[in-house]
Amino acid sequence: MASTANFTTVTLHLHRQIALLKQQANLLGTLVEEQFENALRALAENDLELAEKVVKLDKDVDQREINLEEECLKIIALYQPVAVDMRFLISTIKITNDLERIGDLARDIAQLVISNNGESRERIIDFAALTAKVKWMVRKGLEAMIALDSETAREVCNSDDEVDEQFRLIKEKVISELEKGNSNVRALITELTISDYMESIADHAKKICEDVVYTVDAEVIRHSSLVDTPKNLSS
Amino acid sequence: MASTANFTTVTLHLHRQIALLKQQANLLGTLVEEQFENALRALAENDLELAEKVVKLDKDVDQREINLEEECLKIIALYQPVAVDMRFLISTIKITNDLERIGDLARDIAQLVISNNGESRERIIDFAALTAKVKWMVRKGLEAMIALDSETAREVCNSDDEVDEQFRLIKEKVISELEKGNSNVRALITELTISDYMESIADHAKKICEDVVYTVDAEVIRHSSLVDTPKNLSS
Repeated sequence: MASTANFTTVTLHLHRQIALLKQQANLLGTLVEEQFENALRALAENDLELAEKVVKLDKDVDQREINLEEECLKIIALYQPVAVDMRFLISTIKITNDLERIGDLARDIAQLVISNNGESRERIIDFAALTAKVKWMVRKGLEAMIALDSETAREVCNSDDEVDEQFRLIKEKVISELEKGNSNVRALITELTISDYMESIADHAKKICEDVVYTVDAEVIRHSSLVDTPKNLSS
Repeated sequence: MASTANFTTVTLHLHRQIALLKQQANLLGTLVEEQFENALRALAENDLELAEKVVKLDKDVDQREINLEEECLKIIALYQPVAVDMRFLISTIKITNDLERIGDLARDIAQLVISNNGESRERIIDFAALTAKVKWMVRKGLEAMIALDSETAREVCNSDDEVDEQFRLIKEKVISELEKGNSNVRALITELTISDYMESIADHAKKICEDVVYTVDAEVIRHSSLVDTPKNLSS
């Protein structure tokens, strides 16, 4: 009886720690999403001040990722969790790593705005559709992470092919413009670079969702191009 | 006394499992390095057959990464390791993830060779220096991983800035060629893409080394641009 009571207390403590961790992970997710949206806004509006704010805040994102990983390791060492709790902790380490990388890419976009020195000009390539899809993947990826919702996570994973196709089309458009002799070479290469960053952000959103599926359904879905809806959801 | 004997047996088993895991991680590292070198050779020699071999082998790399991660999780669940053993296991999960990504990028380079349909032509951009540096980082990174040599790992981390600078120079060269009206637009964009893949491979080699430093010295060095030699090595 005493042993059961002790076990229950330990489980209670563990779950309290996990709840706190989840809060911090959500906070990091919100911060990274804000960084990404601000980078896009800085780009759209040639807003140097906002771009500099994004670059400056990146250190905060980095520190939060380090703290979160250390927290996960401490909890694993202290409570030796099993099954879903253990999967949650390992996934949190991997997810925060991907969130930090999204933060880095947002910073890289902001840095391109800064190196352009706020010069206002028309975009040559229309990447509104790509931007919208990547924003959707990040938003839904975070929702899936917070709610541990593997159905939404699988939906996000399946969107990655669409992003890849949009990126391919943009690349072809850049090549075609250059072949036609468009003289805005630097601007075209910058727009290609930004699209490439977007595609990488989508990859990280996908990886976050693969870890959500792993946590919830104990199923490894990475490296598969299309993700089946699990049997219990499709039936 | 009995308890001590039991503890020793468990530790012995744990270390046997870790030794086996290390062997498998080394094997994956060797395979990924071979994939990368073959992709570069396929590119240099327009060798379609070799490029197809690289693409085909990528599934093997993916499967090995999944197996290794599952093995790490099993060992953590079973032996509840602490300190350096725990750090080793968590780092192995992260390192195999980076190895798998290097494998993906090698596959992407091979796919560019295939989409070029083996057509032989002179390179416009000379990326021999970039290639040599990235190959060195991958080689040294694997050595540091195998020998758990944090001094070499720090050396690799510090080389990343050099790769970034070489990539920046290549990008400027591509822009300058296009501005001069070089009509090989598609070839130039492909060469820029390959250089970008190289730069990403260097990033992953750096991340592997950051995890080696974490395992050996229990120090988090990621997100710092230059890595100090630890006091015990510089004195």
